[in-house]
Amino acid sequence: MPPKLVLPVERKRGEPALTESRRTVVCSRGGTCEAAVDASEISSLLEQKDTFVWLDLQNPQAADVQLLHDEFQFHPLSIEDATRHHERPKLEAFEKYYFMVFYELGYSRDDQRLRSQAIGLFIGTNYIVSVHNQPIATIDETIKRWQNNTAEFGNDAGALLYSLLDSIVDDYFPVIDELAERVEDIEQQIFEHFQEEALQQVFALKRDLLGVRRVVSPERDVLNVLIRREVPIFERNTILYLQDVYDHIVRITDSIDTYRDLLSSALDAFLSLQSNQLNQIVKVLTITSIVLMCDALIAGIYGMNFEFMPELHWRYGYPFALGLMVVISISLVLYLRRRKWL
Amino acid sequence: MPPKLVLPVERKRGEPALTESRRTVVCSRGGTCEAAVDASEISSLLEQKDTFVWLDLQNPQAADVQLLHDEFQFHPLSIEDATRHHERPKLEAFEKYYFMVFYELGYSRDDQRLRSQAIGLFIGTNYIVSVHNQPIATIDETIKRWQNNTAEFGNDAGALLYSLLDSIVDDYFPVIDELAERVEDIEQQIFEHFQEEALQQVFALKRDLLGVRRVVSPERDVLNVLIRREVPIFERNTILYLQDVYDHIVRITDSIDTYRDLLSSALDAFLSLQSNQLNQIVKVLTITSIVLMCDALIAGIYGMNFEFMPELHWRYGYPFALGLMVVISISLVLYLRRRKWL
Amino acid sequence: MPPKLVLPVERKRGEPALTESRRTVVCSRGGTCEAAVDASEISSLLEQKDTFVWLDLQNPQAADVQLLHDEFQFHPLSIEDATRHHERPKLEAFEKYYFMVFYELGYSRDDQRLRSQAIGLFIGTNYIVSVHNQPIATIDETIKRWQNNTAEFGNDAGALLYSLLDSIVDDYFPVIDELAERVEDIEQQIFEHFQEEALQQVFALKRDLLGVRRVVSPERDVLNVLIRREVPIFERNTILYLQDVYDHIVRITDSIDTYRDLLSSALDAFLSLQSNQLNQIVKVLTITSIVLMCDALIAGIYGMNFEFMPELHWRYGYPFALGLMVVISISLVLYLRRRKWL
Amino acid sequence: MPPKLVLPVERKRGEPALTESRRTVVCSRGGTCEAAVDASEISSLLEQKDTFVWLDLQNPQAADVQLLHDEFQFHPLSIEDATRHHERPKLEAFEKYYFMVFYELGYSRDDQRLRSQAIGLFIGTNYIVSVHNQPIATIDETIKRWQNNTAEFGNDAGALLYSLLDSIVDDYFPVIDELAERVEDIEQQIFEHFQEEALQQVFALKRDLLGVRRVVSPERDVLNVLIRREVPIFERNTILYLQDVYDHIVRITDSIDTYRDLLSSALDAFLSLQSNQLNQIVKVLTITSIVLMCDALIAGIYGMNFEFMPELHWRYGYPFALGLMVVISISLVLYLRRRKWL
Amino acid sequence: MPPKLVLPVERKRGEPALTESRRTVVCSRGGTCEAAVDASEISSLLEQKDTFVWLDLQNPQAADVQLLHDEFQFHPLSIEDATRHHERPKLEAFEKYYFMVFYELGYSRDDQRLRSQAIGLFIGTNYIVSVHNQPIATIDETIKRWQNNTAEFGNDAGALLYSLLDSIVDDYFPVIDELAERVEDIEQQIFEHFQEEALQQVFALKRDLLGVRRVVSPERDVLNVLIRREVPIFERNTILYLQDVYDHIVRITDSIDTYRDLLSSALDAFLSLQSNQLNQIVKVLTITSIVLMCDALIAGIYGMNFEFMPELHWRYGYPFALGLMVVISISLVLYLRRRKWL
Ligand SMILES: [Mg+2]
Ligand SMILES: [Mg+2]
Ligand SMILES: [Mg+2]
Ligand SMILES: [Mg+2]
Ligand SMILES: [Mg+2]
Ligand SMILES: [Mg+2]
Ligand SMILES: [Mg+2]
Ligand SMILES: [Mg+2]
Ligand SMILES: [Mg+2]
Ligand SMILES: [Mg+2]
Ligand SMILES: [Mg+2]
Ligand SMILES: [Mg+2]
Ligand SMILES: [Mg+2]
Ligand SMILES: [Mg+2]
Ligand SMILES: [Mg+2]
Ligand SMILES: [Mg+2]
Ligand SMILES: [Mg+2]
Ligand SMILES: [Mg+2]
Ligand SMILES: [Mg+2]
Ligand SMILES: [Mg+2]
Ligand SMILES: [Mg+2]
Ligand SMILES: [Mg+2]
Ligand SMILES: [Mg+2]
Ligand SMILES: [Mg+2]
Ligand SMILES: [Mg+2]
Ligand SMILES: [Mg+2]
Ligand SMILES: [Mg+2]
Ligand SMILES: [Mg+2]
Ligand SMILES: [Mg+2]
Ligand SMILES: [Mg+2]
Ligand SMILES: [Mg+2]
Repeated sequence: MPPKLVLPVERKRGEPALTESRRTVVCSRGGTCEAAVDASEISSLLEQKDTFVWLDLQNPQAADVQLLHDEFQFHPLSIEDATRHHERPKLEAFEKYYFMVFYELGYSRDDQRLRSQAIGLFIGTNYIVSVHNQPIATIDETIKRWQNNTAEFGNDAGALLYSLLDSIVDDYFPVIDELAERVEDIEQQIFEHFQEEALQQVFALKRDLLGVRRVVSPERDVLNVLIRREVPIFERNTILYLQDVYDHIVRITDSIDTYRDLLSSALDAFLSLQSNQLNQIVKVLTITSIVLMCDALIAGIYGMNFEFMPELHWRYGYPFALGLMVVISISLVLYLRRRKWL
Repeated sequence: MPPKLVLPVERKRGEPALTESRRTVVCSRGGTCEAAVDASEISSLLEQKDTFVWLDLQNPQAADVQLLHDEFQFHPLSIEDATRHHERPKLEAFEKYYFMVFYELGYSRDDQRLRSQAIGLFIGTNYIVSVHNQPIATIDETIKRWQNNTAEFGNDAGALLYSLLDSIVDDYFPVIDELAERVEDIEQQIFEHFQEEALQQVFALKRDLLGVRRVVSPERDVLNVLIRREVPIFERNTILYLQDVYDHIVRITDSIDTYRDLLSSALDAFLSLQSNQLNQIVKVLTITSIVLMCDALIAGIYGMNFEFMPELHWRYGYPFALGLMVVISISLVLYLRRRKWL
Repeated sequence: MPPKLVLPVERKRGEPALTESRRTVVCSRGGTCEAAVDASEISSLLEQKDTFVWLDLQNPQAADVQLLHDEFQFHPLSIEDATRHHERPKLEAFEKYYFMVFYELGYSRDDQRLRSQAIGLFIGTNYIVSVHNQPIATIDETIKRWQNNTAEFGNDAGALLYSLLDSIVDDYFPVIDELAERVEDIEQQIFEHFQEEALQQVFALKRDLLGVRRVVSPERDVLNVLIRREVPIFERNTILYLQDVYDHIVRITDSIDTYRDLLSSALDAFLSLQSNQLNQIVKVLTITSIVLMCDALIAGIYGMNFEFMPELHWRYGYPFALGLMVVISISLVLYLRRRKWL
Repeated sequence: MPPKLVLPVERKRGEPALTESRRTVVCSRGGTCEAAVDASEISSLLEQKDTFVWLDLQNPQAADVQLLHDEFQFHPLSIEDATRHHERPKLEAFEKYYFMVFYELGYSRDDQRLRSQAIGLFIGTNYIVSVHNQPIATIDETIKRWQNNTAEFGNDAGALLYSLLDSIVDDYFPVIDELAERVEDIEQQIFEHFQEEALQQVFALKRDLLGVRRVVSPERDVLNVLIRREVPIFERNTILYLQDVYDHIVRITDSIDTYRDLLSSALDAFLSLQSNQLNQIVKVLTITSIVLMCDALIAGIYGMNFEFMPELHWRYGYPFALGLMVVISISLVLYLRRRKWL
Repeated sequence: MPPKLVLPVERKRGEPALTESRRTVVCSRGGTCEAAVDASEISSLLEQKDTFVWLDLQNPQAADVQLLHDEFQFHPLSIEDATRHHERPKLEAFEKYYFMVFYELGYSRDDQRLRSQAIGLFIGTNYIVSVHNQPIATIDETIKRWQNNTAEFGNDAGALLYSLLDSIVDDYFPVIDELAERVEDIEQQIFEHFQEEALQQVFALKRDLLGVRRVVSPERDVLNVLIRREVPIFERNTILYLQDVYDHIVRITDSIDTYRDLLSSALDAFLSLQSNQLNQIVKVLTITSIVLMCDALIAGIYGMNFEFMPELHWRYGYPFALGLMVVISISLVLYLRRRKWL
């Protein structure tokens, strides 16, 4: 039945060739860890109840995919999902393991770009397999801490999974803080000195908030399933810990919604401000131009070349004309001021 | 009880006459396939547990409809739904079979038009009947692959249905990608060189996104019913595969919602931009016209024909007037600049 | 306990007096139908299991209301609801019958007016009572078809109810099509030649869509209850038929939502278009008036009456002035074009 | 445990002192009613199964509150809620009684003001206690009708409660009608002769609709609990009656939502209209002022005082200039008309 | 398993050093209270069923955290949540206690600033531990009242918790009232004398309403869990009291939603008003400037220096020109008035 197993690793356009890496760490219940294990030994190791295997595949190649199939006997569909990396965060139950997709988020301050990377996780009773494309510091650290501290962690998939998810989610907070900073900056700009580029920033920020929400929202569902299941997947103590991660995700979702709301009101406020300013400007334009046109009309009238224009010959015709202009201008301004126009 | 069975096939206005086609493929469990079977044999074939029948009807005529009723004994209502083709995607349980409506989506790049076509599917224990109006490549390929590979697929309605739905949904992705491309183009246009036609494009794009959502959203429900049923319709392994299709549909729905959000913000941004530009333009208009009107007023004053205007007889009256204009213009600009108007 | 039974039939303001009509059709299981039955016989007929009574009351009077109470022994509250006719669509279970409110929709093309009329239905095991104010063709036809075809329909409340509801809902489609047509017209107008009356049309159309939604949405709930009930009201085959009606209603609800969305985007597009055009117009106004004012200023300057203005006595003063105007105008336009203003 | 029982009745700012009133009506099952009963007898009356007590407290004082506590033994919290009167509509189950908050709505046409008043209701098996601040005609009438008709009502809390709630909800309809009238008026104004005060009316109307919704929406929940409870509170027949009240509330909620939608579209339509008119006006301004400025420029040119201007000495210079103006004006208008500007 | 216990207390940027305080109050069932207890005695006190301990930690230090772990044996995660203080309101069940996060809200009128402070609460059968950063008057008072009135309260976690939550929620109302006041002020400003700063106020107010909603909404969920639990946490009487607090929270949520709605309509109204005024102003500008330009054109024409202009030599040329201006002005105004432009 399709899909076939031999999966060609997809190449995204314009992406540089990636370094590959396969890391297997095996720890036995006694506390001894082996850092490099031969791939072909894995299936026999998995049968020993007192060993725990963590296999980390970075930028997996055909041979790695074959390993997942032959040694771990994962379902082709979950192997496909783990290696294709454009899945939504999710949790799926297979007969002997769970398959989870989770995302790492990063933010580079220089070019204000959000970065996200999917991590595929196969969670069995005595193994975890993590699959991803680019190096992920959090995974390296979690493995290292576990290697050095097997006693503390135990050989327990739940405790290890918590460690990993907690670190991943902890790394979301600085990203959210950056976005919050940008929201604040935009608010300030709007009420102080608005520039046209700010609008492009608002748009980019909306896009980023949307992007983060799109990752975090299904992750919340994943964690909710993990902790609320009738038949719990992990033991009660582990669930308490996962609940803590769930809490953080809920808080992040909350924050994002708040920032989206704030951004919308900021834009609304900006539009109102502009509409108010336009009103003000047009008012001034109207009043000034009417006053000036009235004065110009008077000048125009006395610039006419009629033979018989008595005022032209008055001694004080000129000051009279100037006075007329002043009087009309002042009257107009006073009139408009009384009608609350000025 | 109405509706009567003899259904006249509806003619949509202006649509050219369609070529008809009826294809029956029967495969027995042993792996042998027969490509053309006489219609009247079908009912007896269906009674043999080890054969599997796929009947594909393209642009069905009265005789085809009669066949569905006499040989398969489908309920008149589901026959009607299958031949009328303006149904929403849905799944309905009848006593001996399921009736499903699913849609093929296509996109022609030339005229930027979205195309959709309903497929009616009757799913029994050892048969699938597919009904549609226009040729559908996906169906042809699925049947061909099955014919050549009965061993791999087995004679299992679930596996065949998965094959078909997976291909159909896989074909949605290029459509979504085209829409995403258009959203991006519009974003760019808005911030670079906006033209009035772009608005018409925004509107057409919204309409397409709405159209796709209207197909995909009930299809998600259909797949959800297939995989979450208390009493499962298919065996567990098949459900894993259908879950994969469900996943893809969820991702597509997600994407569409994101693009709709982005399109809305793009339009909002455009409106803000325009309102900002209008402000800027009106400001310049106001200031320039006030300056020019002041200068013109001075010219007008010294163009008056009064007999007694001392300035007119000054030696430097003319440069004085020009100087007055320059001084007033500069003062005005300086004043407005200080009031943050310029 | 209030309300009292003797219900005065409400008169809506300005409504003409209605013709009354009471029609009773009784069919016995054998297939014989009687078209006119004496009111007082009804209660005894209802006790015969093999007869089926359809009583249709148009614009019911006090005597009709009394009949519903005395012969059918309906609950005063349901009688009130059936005769007052401003109820929402609903389904209510009483001890021996169901009471349903459903709506007929019509559309008159001439004055583009939507018309709706409530129908009260009492559904018992061997009777249906329909109550309404104005003549309803659908009811007449259903009764006639049943009279001529008792064999086909059977004496089954469910089959008759399906027939009636199906016809009513089928009549919604032309109404929806009219509304769709109007949405399309408005879209076209917006992008081609907008007139102020179009806005009034948009508003009226929104109102109609709201009106249809308000009828159709609770009707969907009514049908949902009919087909999803734990303890089904009708037998399984009838429910299949009612499911078909439910389907149609869902499709209609879908369509209305789509049209509302389209209408909103059309209005948004219109506002953007207008804002864009305003920008364009104001730009042209600004530029042209600045150019003209500059030229006029030059003319004004050389219209001043100073004694000592050397240019006035130049041989080529006049062409020089005209040339100055042309040069300034062209420079301005070039300058603004370079600043992307034109 | 707090809150303490002796509740000081809250004084709202600026509210005049209220007249107090305590009314107790006792009816025995036989049908005899006593209109005035001594407070201290109540607890013993409540123990007689065949009497029914209705106690109505208007603007309750400390002694009344004490009575509720000592004779009826109500929970301090429900007494507090009944006397403070800023509760949301709700239904709460206590061990021996239900406590309900419901609202009376009124509308005074003169000052277009909506008025609402909370009513606290304690509902026991053989008593109802109603508590409110201002006189409520509906309560008076219900009690009077019950006194005169004990036979009809019975000594049944459910029937009495229905009577009261039905009257209260019936009184909502005229209020809704007034609001509907105002919505219609505003629609008309918007399309006919808009005045600035209309906007203030729109705002006030939105506020009123919000206010009514805020009362009616939780009341719907209250009635829903009353009629849908697994263990029904009242007997089946009473529930049929309460269902009728529920129906009316649902209809009112529906109406309010419709009016809010209509009001929003009316405002949107108004904004579009205005934006359209602004466009139109600015267009006319632009075109006319350009035409006039062109003509004025020509006049200005021939008003220049150059010595050598051949046209000035032409015999037909003046008509030539006037003709030039006419030609330029007409050409401009024709040109703009061809570019669809006019 | 991480997180480690020794938690460094987080320092928020720019926040002054806080005074610390640890208060332990122990009351035995007999009614005697001890105000200061040695930390090391706590675990033995907790084992005595007839004593009740309230430990209040303000700005907890490392030793306090150790105490929570060693004497109370709280889970590290809940200790972390209690001391970090950026949690959402929540309720979590641990094996022997509940952990709750609730917020105090305050409003300082001077700088119109909203203030919120998290309170962590550990609720066991015979103890409550409250953790917070700044002094909270409500906690002090609740403890004092309990100390003086153990008899009334009993040694019951539920009654004490109610006392505390009720006081906290009661303190929300003045905050809401302040916000309501600000909403009202803004409404008035919009319809009377709008100033640009008002928009900044609208924005700040939206932000505050959002902030309060973000605290109050999950608190409603917390209380809902407390009172609706299948296996109730507290005894029935206590739940009645907590239901009262729940009620208040629901009312507050309602109010906030109403104020947000009102604020939005106020802004919409403001935009409509402005757009209306702009229209009015531009109309006046248009009409006046057209009239003035027409008059100026006439003046310009008669200011031309043509040799042959008969009007110039008319006796009544000048009054004729002035008359022409008046006639044209009046005709224009009359014409525009007839076209409903004025
Ligand atoms: Mg964490
Ligand atoms: Mg951590
Ligand atoms: Mg900053
Ligand atoms: Mg935590
Ligand atoms: Mg943590
Ligand atoms: Mg936690
Ligand atoms: Mg696929
Ligand atoms: Mg595929
Ligand atoms: Mg592109
Ligand atoms: Mg997949
Ligand atoms: Mg796939
Ligand atoms: Mg999958
Ligand atoms: Mg139909
Ligand atoms: Mg039909
Ligand atoms: Mg058309
Ligand atoms: Mg159908
Ligand atoms: Mg159907
Ligand atoms: Mg049909
Ligand atoms: Mg059907
Ligand atoms: Mg009523
Ligand atoms: Mg009534
Ligand atoms: Mg009216
Ligand atoms: Mg009713
Ligand atoms: Mg009624
Ligand atoms: Mg009813
Ligand atoms: Mg309270
Ligand atoms: Mg209190
Ligand atoms: Mg105030
Ligand atoms: Mg209360
Ligand atoms: Mg209280
Ligand atoms: Mg209460």
